[in-house]
Amino acid sequence: MVVSIQGEPGSFSHLAARQAFGSHLELLTRRTFDELFRSVSEGEADRGMVPIENSLAGSVHENYDRMRESGLHIVGETQVRVRLSVIVRPGTVWPAVKRVASHPVALRQCNGFLRRHAGIEAVPVYDTAGSVADLMKGRAGYEAAIASSLAAELYGGEVLEAAVEDNPLNFTRFWVVAREPLTPEGVAKTSIVFTLPNVPGSLYEALGVFASRQVDLCKLESRPIPGRPWEYRFYLDVRGEPGADTAGAIDELRALSGEIQVLGSYADLAVR
Amino acid sequence: MVVSIQGEPGSFSHLAARQAFGSHLELLTRRTFDELFRSVSEGEADRGMVPIENSLAGSVHENYDRMRESGLHIVGETQVRVRLSVIVRPGTVWPAVKRVASHPVALRQCNGFLRRHAGIEAVPVYDTAGSVADLMKGRAGYEAAIASSLAAELYGGEVLEAAVEDNPLNFTRFWVVAREPLTPEGVAKTSIVFTLPNVPGSLYEALGVFASRQVDLCKLESRPIPGRPWEYRFYLDVRGEPGADTAGAIDELRALSGEIQVLGSYADLAVR
Repeated sequence: MVVSIQGEPGSFSHLAARQAFGSHLELLTRRTFDELFRSVSEGEADRGMVPIENSLAGSVHENYDRMRESGLHIVGETQVRVRLSVIVRPGTVWPAVKRVASHPVALRQCNGFLRRHAGIEAVPVYDTAGSVADLMKGRAGYEAAIASSLAAELYGGEVLEAAVEDNPLNFTRFWVVAREPLTPEGVAKTSIVFTLPNVPGSLYEALGVFASRQVDLCKLESRPIPGRPWEYRFYLDVRGEPGADTAGAIDELRALSGEIQVLGSYADLAVR
Repeated sequence: MVVSIQGEPGSFSHLAARQAFGSHLELLTRRTFDELFRSVSEGEADRGMVPIENSLAGSVHENYDRMRESGLHIVGETQVRVRLSVIVRPGTVWPAVKRVASHPVALRQCNGFLRRHAGIEAVPVYDTAGSVADLMKGRAGYEAAIASSLAAELYGGEVLEAAVEDNPLNFTRFWVVAREPLTPEGVAKTSIVFTLPNVPGSLYEALGVFASRQVDLCKLESRPIPGRPWEYRFYLDVRGEPGADTAGAIDELRALSGEIQVLGSYADLAVR
């Protein structure tokens, strides 16, 4: 199984891939999300890991747009707990740490740690795991990096302090995407994107096709439609039996919608 | 009327303030959105202009969070058309333009222009209007800036080419915020934020209190609740009679919600 991620080995995308497929996967790293989607579309990878939502920061809205445009299918999801560690070159002790590097989002999630060590300067860099890789090469302008403990393991770093994130309830949800759809058995999540006529009551009516079948609405996002100011595409996650209730609801929604696209029906993947 | 904006004179926030209050307002500029909210809370400004949504890029989600936490009230809204101009020091001609500066979002919205002038380098800076101000001071590392024509007028720049934005249907919607709420007459928009019990059907039921009264749902956003992974606060804009139908719907919603907060009832403000 070749699995494509955005970012470096040791990133949280890598952790998500291991959680979904175990540690024997073949990892393909891509610099941007566009390249990640392309690697799956063009067959270089069997699966792609797409971060879609963080429980503190909210949705990665651009990845909703990319997913819709890619023509790929969601075939699974997995949720990674974001645990951040302060990582150093083996043997480095606290007094030697003057600067600590990480991705700006990770640095913002370690406010408490940075306040407790007011003398240490935070250095923003492009990637959490990449900051550890650069640190271990010995040419970085910092003495510590904040990243996953997997990054420490992969690059030979040492964890000086673990769990430095402010909020322990920090999770990132990833979609697993593939070229072909799957049909999971039993209750599953289904993601749908649709537009509605711009008339009063249309969204309520659209959600009603699910509610009337006891299909649960998990999440609703709206994204602007370029060229049609203040009109939206709706991205809806529902949970139910894909074959029966959900399919019936989608058929009914089709009659109410302008465009409609089913992004996939999928289960939670976790090899632990 | 003292009106606070985030950014520099000549920015699109400044244009929004002029559109809402005319050109005789007293402008207060703040570097960050947190400082903008504070300037209104603490009485330095009578009104604040808060960009909440762009018709191409989508919502400014952090400003939803700030609005809820601020205790301020929405007392109006206004929509500014984002027209971008290439601005130079008077007398500069095309062959002299090697680099053009602007905010990264504005540069991304001028892809076509940048492709047509493939020899010109795009330089990202912190602010559209600020790029013109710096250009006119004569110490900038670029020969042109992309910003509003108001910025050219205020700083004494010259518009070398107007309307270089890719998509002419590019609008930014601003909330006007104040310390005290207003009660507009007739049909108005009302913005509400609420949480719901995490049970199937709760969102559908919540939207039903508006639909059953012919109160139109304009926009629905969800934002994560820190510490409660995969639970959301819903931000809802509805349009109806604030005194009658909308108030009745909100009373009914109150019984269904965990927390609920009315951010304001307001009209579209445009002095033209």
